[in-house]
Amino acid sequence: MTKFPAGIEERDGSLWFTEDDRGNLEIKYRIKEVLFSEQSPFQHVMVVDSYDFGRTLILDGAVQTTAKDGHIYNEMITHVPLSLHPNPKRVLIIGGGDCGAAREVTKYKNVEHIDMAEIDELVVKASKAHLKEVSGNLSDPRVHFQFTDGIRFVEEKEKEYDVIIVDSSDPVGPAEALFSYDFYAKLHRALKDDGMMVCQSQSPFFHQPILQKTAMHIGELFTYSKTYIAVVPTYPGGFWSFTLGSKVHPIKPESAKVEVRDTKYFNEDILKGCFALPTFVKDILPPQKSS
Amino acid sequence: MTKFPAGIEERDGSLWFTEDDRGNLEIKYRIKEVLFSEQSPFQHVMVVDSYDFGRTLILDGAVQTTAKDGHIYNEMITHVPLSLHPNPKRVLIIGGGDCGAAREVTKYKNVEHIDMAEIDELVVKASKAHLKEVSGNLSDPRVHFQFTDGIRFVEEKEKEYDVIIVDSSDPVGPAEALFSYDFYAKLHRALKDDGMMVCQSQSPFFHQPILQKTAMHIGELFTYSKTYIAVVPTYPGGFWSFTLGSKVHPIKPESAKVEVRDTKYFNEDILKGCFALPTFVKDILPPQKSS
Repeated sequence: MTKFPAGIEERDGSLWFTEDDRGNLEIKYRIKEVLFSEQSPFQHVMVVDSYDFGRTLILDGAVQTTAKDGHIYNEMITHVPLSLHPNPKRVLIIGGGDCGAAREVTKYKNVEHIDMAEIDELVVKASKAHLKEVSGNLSDPRVHFQFTDGIRFVEEKEKEYDVIIVDSSDPVGPAEALFSYDFYAKLHRALKDDGMMVCQSQSPFFHQPILQKTAMHIGELFTYSKTYIAVVPTYPGGFWSFTLGSKVHPIKPESAKVEVRDTKYFNEDILKGCFALPTFVKDILPPQKSS
Repeated sequence: MTKFPAGIEERDGSLWFTEDDRGNLEIKYRIKEVLFSEQSPFQHVMVVDSYDFGRTLILDGAVQTTAKDGHIYNEMITHVPLSLHPNPKRVLIIGGGDCGAAREVTKYKNVEHIDMAEIDELVVKASKAHLKEVSGNLSDPRVHFQFTDGIRFVEEKEKEYDVIIVDSSDPVGPAEALFSYDFYAKLHRALKDDGMMVCQSQSPFFHQPILQKTAMHIGELFTYSKTYIAVVPTYPGGFWSFTLGSKVHPIKPESAKVEVRDTKYFNEDILKGCFALPTFVKDILPPQKSS
């Protein structure tokens, strides 16, 4: 009998991967094969090839990104801040091991330096080898990998970055501390005087307390802050939020110019439309401060 | 041994409902109980109480609407056309057996008459009895139930309605003909000279050929046509589309006034933002004609 990694089973001649997200909902993906499965010091890292979503990165049993929809998340966490900041030159990505966010940032010619602080080198290794649809062939010399704890990395920095992008996994395990007030205060300190940050702030449908707390922390620390949304089909409920903080530059999507055109989800309409929040989301957020 | 309806199984003391949507993805909901399960002449009608989504309407094994997110779909299919039409008095809903769309339409004081042509009376009966979170206590005297084939009903009408809302299920089984050119031509004829229609046009992620075909039919028949999107967590991928057709009135969300305020998803920002389409959706659609 073949031994499969956790979450994989064979049934009627087909392989299935089961994501057991929240106890009361079970999602099973029919897959073609397991391409990579290894335990790192931090988590179990797996890449499978699924029928509906293509190649899929799974960390500790939770789907992180897929060939079919990974670009939505990666475009939305990068092009929104990089379109709103008037001249981003130094960018820090915290997390983002699938390399998709870094790949989008390299599309900006005026960006001179990208630090990528990812704690788990194995995620980068697996993504570069088996998930090129998301990672691309990331060999841009402006990208500097720092395989270290993002919090330790950022706390040694002061007024260094124009834009910081927090591309974390869910707030359990290694990413838990990336949702704390102290961490956002460190980001504030690491940003230049006119810097801007963005983080993924979880599902506005299923993780409202986390979104609310994140938006409050960022709202307290930054002059301007605003939450925006996107649809990421493989995330629970398909509904995802991001929260921006800006020290000096108003968050004015209506007057921003979209510079990069080779995107599949993001465009000028989306930049304006993504800040339109449903009433049930507005109701739990602190006031949106855009100017 | 208790006999459960199709799709329901008991496992480790818990009840689970399995939605097997597209062969390669299986979604299992843990449920508290089956509240209703009957075969109508058209389909199997079931209401279950699920842990994550509350009461849930299931037709032929496919989730249609839930207490937790049904309002999103029902608000978006009604308030968008009713905000864009300057003076809707006579409204026809085709399908919409869960009564959630009719309930939203009754919030408009200037609407005088609502016909609801639903082929399957059992869906209405089950929703009114077991899914009040969606159906409300729909007893508004302006609502006239017509338990008949929506196509037969509409083909006898000429210049009768200000707004027609096609709230159909998926284009398989009883709803298949509701996605044809002929059907939209009948809707065009049933609308007044300045009438407006909207239909749900499936997932822009998983059902692109249907969305494309629907948008082309409506674009050919109507002077103005535009597709808009919403996030409905229980639909595949969470991403849903609707397509508007208008005979005379331009589709100008930026200058429309939102009249009804007691909504949980829809608001003035959403009315403007929902027409912002991702690039991969724009790419498959005919030109959006708004004015």
